[in-house]
Amino acid sequence: MRAHSLALAAPLSAEDAAAQSMPDASPAKWHLAHTTWFFETFLLEAHEAGFAPFHPAFRVLFNSYYNGVGAKHPRPQRGLLTRPGLGEVLAYRAHVDAHMARLLSRAEEGSALGALVELGLQHEQQHQELLLTDVLHLFSCNPLAPAYRAPAPEPGTAAVPPLAWWEHPGGLVQIGHAGAGFAFDNELPRHAVHLAPHALADRLVSNAEFAAFLADGGYQRPELWLAEGWDWRTAQGITQPMYWRPAPAGGWKVFGLDGEQPLRPQAPVSQLSYFEADAYARWAGARLPTEAEWERAAVDTAVAAHGPGGGAHGLFGKVWQWTQSSYAPYPGFRTAPGAVGEYNGKFMVNQYVLRGSSCATPPGHARASYRNFFPATARWQFSGLRLARDL
Amino acid sequence: MRAHSLALAAPLSAEDAAAQSMPDASPAKWHLAHTTWFFETFLLEAHEAGFAPFHPAFRVLFNSYYNGVGAKHPRPQRGLLTRPGLGEVLAYRAHVDAHMARLLSRAEEGSALGALVELGLQHEQQHQELLLTDVLHLFSCNPLAPAYRAPAPEPGTAAVPPLAWWEHPGGLVQIGHAGAGFAFDNELPRHAVHLAPHALADRLVSNAEFAAFLADGGYQRPELWLAEGWDWRTAQGITQPMYWRPAPAGGWKVFGLDGEQPLRPQAPVSQLSYFEADAYARWAGARLPTEAEWERAAVDTAVAAHGPGGGAHGLFGKVWQWTQSSYAPYPGFRTAPGAVGEYNGKFMVNQYVLRGSSCATPPGHARASYRNFFPATARWQFSGLRLARDL
Amino acid sequence: MRAHSLALAAPLSAEDAAAQSMPDASPAKWHLAHTTWFFETFLLEAHEAGFAPFHPAFRVLFNSYYNGVGAKHPRPQRGLLTRPGLGEVLAYRAHVDAHMARLLSRAEEGSALGALVELGLQHEQQHQELLLTDVLHLFSCNPLAPAYRAPAPEPGTAAVPPLAWWEHPGGLVQIGHAGAGFAFDNELPRHAVHLAPHALADRLVSNAEFAAFLADGGYQRPELWLAEGWDWRTAQGITQPMYWRPAPAGGWKVFGLDGEQPLRPQAPVSQLSYFEADAYARWAGARLPTEAEWERAAVDTAVAAHGPGGGAHGLFGKVWQWTQSSYAPYPGFRTAPGAVGEYNGKFMVNQYVLRGSSCATPPGHARASYRNFFPATARWQFSGLRLARDL
Amino acid sequence: MRAHSLALAAPLSAEDAAAQSMPDASPAKWHLAHTTWFFETFLLEAHEAGFAPFHPAFRVLFNSYYNGVGAKHPRPQRGLLTRPGLGEVLAYRAHVDAHMARLLSRAEEGSALGALVELGLQHEQQHQELLLTDVLHLFSCNPLAPAYRAPAPEPGTAAVPPLAWWEHPGGLVQIGHAGAGFAFDNELPRHAVHLAPHALADRLVSNAEFAAFLADGGYQRPELWLAEGWDWRTAQGITQPMYWRPAPAGGWKVFGLDGEQPLRPQAPVSQLSYFEADAYARWAGARLPTEAEWERAAVDTAVAAHGPGGGAHGLFGKVWQWTQSSYAPYPGFRTAPGAVGEYNGKFMVNQYVLRGSSCATPPGHARASYRNFFPATARWQFSGLRLARDL
Repeated sequence: MRAHSLALAAPLSAEDAAAQSMPDASPAKWHLAHTTWFFETFLLEAHEAGFAPFHPAFRVLFNSYYNGVGAKHPRPQRGLLTRPGLGEVLAYRAHVDAHMARLLSRAEEGSALGALVELGLQHEQQHQELLLTDVLHLFSCNPLAPAYRAPAPEPGTAAVPPLAWWEHPGGLVQIGHAGAGFAFDNELPRHAVHLAPHALADRLVSNAEFAAFLADGGYQRPELWLAEGWDWRTAQGITQPMYWRPAPAGGWKVFGLDGEQPLRPQAPVSQLSYFEADAYARWAGARLPTEAEWERAAVDTAVAAHGPGGGAHGLFGKVWQWTQSSYAPYPGFRTAPGAVGEYNGKFMVNQYVLRGSSCATPPGHARASYRNFFPATARWQFSGLRLARDL
Repeated sequence: MRAHSLALAAPLSAEDAAAQSMPDASPAKWHLAHTTWFFETFLLEAHEAGFAPFHPAFRVLFNSYYNGVGAKHPRPQRGLLTRPGLGEVLAYRAHVDAHMARLLSRAEEGSALGALVELGLQHEQQHQELLLTDVLHLFSCNPLAPAYRAPAPEPGTAAVPPLAWWEHPGGLVQIGHAGAGFAFDNELPRHAVHLAPHALADRLVSNAEFAAFLADGGYQRPELWLAEGWDWRTAQGITQPMYWRPAPAGGWKVFGLDGEQPLRPQAPVSQLSYFEADAYARWAGARLPTEAEWERAAVDTAVAAHGPGGGAHGLFGKVWQWTQSSYAPYPGFRTAPGAVGEYNGKFMVNQYVLRGSSCATPPGHARASYRNFFPATARWQFSGLRLARDL
Repeated sequence: MRAHSLALAAPLSAEDAAAQSMPDASPAKWHLAHTTWFFETFLLEAHEAGFAPFHPAFRVLFNSYYNGVGAKHPRPQRGLLTRPGLGEVLAYRAHVDAHMARLLSRAEEGSALGALVELGLQHEQQHQELLLTDVLHLFSCNPLAPAYRAPAPEPGTAAVPPLAWWEHPGGLVQIGHAGAGFAFDNELPRHAVHLAPHALADRLVSNAEFAAFLADGGYQRPELWLAEGWDWRTAQGITQPMYWRPAPAGGWKVFGLDGEQPLRPQAPVSQLSYFEADAYARWAGARLPTEAEWERAAVDTAVAAHGPGGGAHGLFGKVWQWTQSSYAPYPGFRTAPGAVGEYNGKFMVNQYVLRGSSCATPPGHARASYRNFFPATARWQFSGLRLARDL
Repeated sequence: MRAHSLALAAPLSAEDAAAQSMPDASPAKWHLAHTTWFFETFLLEAHEAGFAPFHPAFRVLFNSYYNGVGAKHPRPQRGLLTRPGLGEVLAYRAHVDAHMARLLSRAEEGSALGALVELGLQHEQQHQELLLTDVLHLFSCNPLAPAYRAPAPEPGTAAVPPLAWWEHPGGLVQIGHAGAGFAFDNELPRHAVHLAPHALADRLVSNAEFAAFLADGGYQRPELWLAEGWDWRTAQGITQPMYWRPAPAGGWKVFGLDGEQPLRPQAPVSQLSYFEADAYARWAGARLPTEAEWERAAVDTAVAAHGPGGGAHGLFGKVWQWTQSSYAPYPGFRTAPGAVGEYNGKFMVNQYVLRGSSCATPPGHARASYRNFFPATARWQFSGLRLARDL
């Protein structure tokens, strides 16, 4: 998992890896360092005999938001840290990896370190996805429209299949993580939720469908939007998804990790904010699913495998799917003691849950109980939607 | 009900009634006019034969947020409308009342007007509470600390009773409006919710308890706060509830409708934001209730009468009680067709539900299924909290 | 002079007099109180035996910017002072006037009070003009377009005379106040300035001329603007003078103290910012005069009388005339000791000098050496321009 | 001169050269590219037969503010241009240098190219100084306090000599560029200015003197500040010069191109805003000089040589010296036709003139008639002051 981070950063120049295109995004170099800081701070500092920091200033520089650890470099100024350079950050990674290997080789069977290491690796996987979305945002600010990678072979021109609905009669269901595998604290405890009768679309909303929303004046009709979303749209002058650009010959180009490409009508619409997803759903005579509805459906759908493509239904591996559920603690939610407990709980306000996973999610990271979350205005993630409706 | 608005405005000078102390608040004169506009626009304009507006510009001036009606005067500039003067607004009220009386006297039995009239009156009651909270905010900005009314006779010095817990074993409960009386669309449909075992405090958090939180460094300890709340607190320099002011001799004064008064330790703490209420609950080893937990308890509590004082438990008539529930549609929620349908649904994002009612709520307006809502930063309402915890 | 303030406020309702339409403007009631505060603070408090304040809080409430006096109510919140009401402010005026009359009746011949009283009266005259410009701005924010006064009788349709140039060969001239009459400290000391050969237009730029600038794309051509002015114009979306409004039938209406009126082509253009005046001058192949050039011409022009209309040349009584001169101290400039010395000197940065006087300037207040000053973005004053050019 | 830019950038990593620490500053890489763009756009594009751009997008990417050239990349986003990389920008420089050499080798004797080439080189020298001040600002944002270069050998501990005054009786003097050498358009035309009797300090204000101002509460006393300066200071929380940092053992460290160093009492105070310089002068019972006073003194002072150290009087080569003169056109000022005429004139508003030169000014770039200019809040330049007073 650690090597995958390096592989993701490999196409980047030192300059690419250092820049920060907005306060919400972080430089790739910072992602590489912060994920290493996690191991150094929560594992080595706490458990290594004779621990000495790689660099005493890094404890502050690469602390993201853990007040329990102490001071933090201001988030909007991460892009000003031209020093340490990328080379030094790579050396930091190698140093911590070596010390971690030694620490683990000496750990007794059944020690408590395992859970923290697992958390550190899952944490790093989260940053692997952010590294990609943040690089994409950075490149989107460059008039040269640089591509992070070569375009994938054209995925064919198969038409989007007609939408079918997965109906559910409602009633009590259990949601939340079950079983022995890893889960974040926010997926627990498993608990009962009562659902009303409803239906979920069996596939994602496509670019072609979203283009029809645009063509129908979707961004100009306040009755389709939440009031706060409309005000935000108007103040920001938003008239289309974040990376859609008018093509000179008409229609749209879409900026992605493979640079500017013609809009692929059959691909799922992506980089939507909650407000845009919600407006689309209202236009379509539907609504966003709740996270419990989504999880129930994902568990019950045999094709929900996480493999390449995530199945024809797109539950996983395409785009994260906005739900109408505010990010909130499950009944009985508990945080871990100490700074590491600042992981999830303190963000449970004014954010909305996304479910599934995206094309940028590292393999093996997704599961049906996984709860991603972003503010309703966030639109630089691989985030789209699946429709739901009441029965 | 209409006369009550005039009674509330009676202590105000024309200047008091015209000023707007922040974009979230409105001048009292605007409240008087807008509630009248509701009747003129949705009743008279739609149903009166030969309708002629009292003043053609008022349709825009006093439209709050109904895009279906058309243009709106910008909200932050409501305080610049020195014309029409208070006298003309009172004439507007009398004119519309007279026309409404005539319209209703001619309406056939069982006409559809009744529901709209009821909505208009309930709407006006909501603005009656806002008129008071907005005047209080305006007066709080004046170094002269003017009092809206004389202090109530000192309510005695009875100590706050020890807190007891209402325990509930969890399971399926029904929430939402039931029966024939009036309810807003957001209280419907009535539906099942599954609760986990939990307990609710049998009374409100008091000023004395909140003062202990302050004395324990509650506003200086980030681990007690949601991350966004901490950032907001820090950026705004907030170190105590909005209307608490250091008393020269130590301790606190509290600014209220009766001006600056010594802090009443046994009174419920008020004018809290969600962030402050949540931080207090965490400090107290508890949490905020969900709105379903609250409603279940209110329905089951025999003493939940709406009468003066709202009962010893303070469910009603003291302070609104923040819940941890994001303001969201109930399963199967539907809005009314037309502009009047913009009443509630479009605000269902990034707001939190408050339950109960306050000392500023007009008599008869509260009920157990009522859902008030404000952003997490709102702190100029009569808003406090009741603790909850998991069992 | 004191009575004139009351006469100016007479057409205003209590609400009109209390509102503040932007931080740069003040409520009329505040002007009435602050000018009174000047006498109470600098005359009565300092010189009256047994002085007792009218209201102890007024010393802070109505202090504008005198740090030497102490704390100040925040400027952007002047409109929130609904108390004291207009009636109480008028009583404050009467109280201070009575005490001032008694103080002066007992003052010895040749006492130092006279200079301070004169300063207080000149100060009040300045606020009389501001009262008008601030009311005009307030009314301009009201969609009802209220008129402060009835329109003047149509001033005829005489065409604007062809522009002639007053040429000057350059050389040493003396500027600054001379003689025994009153002058502000910023008009002193009188001193020599060397002028290059130049010419000044013998009349003001008219509305018709400015409309030609608009018609020629003047607000869309960056090469006509100072860089900061262009950025300001673009950010603010400014496309015409502040109170020009498109007339439904084409052309322009202009909002003024007499409400919305058709543009009067022959009237001098008014309510211009420095940036707009400068851009117009560049478009016209000319420039703004320096303040020394202006003063020299005003002194030498026999027709520069201050009487009604200010003469055909419009030096006085029409619109203030922007000069290209930054507001700076004259060589040897000295401020008075004490708080009253904060009158002018501390504002001598990032402001530009306007010369002459306007239709809102009280009679007798103007003179050739008078230096008015505003930031380059200020556009709510009666400010226009007179062209100049190098010879 | 072109090679000097490369030498200045040599100590920087690719990351250092790409980052932008505030909108007012530019990345070093951008300085390298923009100075090259000047030659490509104004020389090669205009005069080279068969001109082909190095990269068609660079015309926009590296345009600073020349509206006559066309579109510009937004200034605050210069730091997001991770592509082109530093290597490509260096190739751009080599390409343009080679084409320029060929163009010049073919130019006829007496062609008009010479003046443009000279302007391009002088322009590049200006950016050489900015490159240093911008890197210094960037490094100041890094908690690691990186040093751009090794500290100079300790310059001795010679005490600051007592201040003497250069007195001048006043009268007519000539200022502005004279003679055949290069000058910017803003130094012309040479013209007469009348001076009042005055005196100028024969040396710069030192760090020790400025520390005494701090110790005397200089940053806490509004009476010492211009009103706008005081508001700015308060809003920004400014309590000392920009790069002064409290030393753990008391006293001050100063961040400079050689990293954090103990404050050198005898060195001239630097990195002052106009507001701070003005406040110091008022505290010292003096004032800032006018630019004409400064230029007269510099011309008359035999020791005003530009050599290392700039002479004991510090007229050149130490710190730029704020004058009280607003940046304004000289009488008869003319801009060049075309886009290159946007060089100076359009910035002549709301800026103040600095005279002399600094330790960061390239050798040979300074002269007595040189007019540098910055807004009154600018404090990241090597800017200090020399006192003046009236006689």
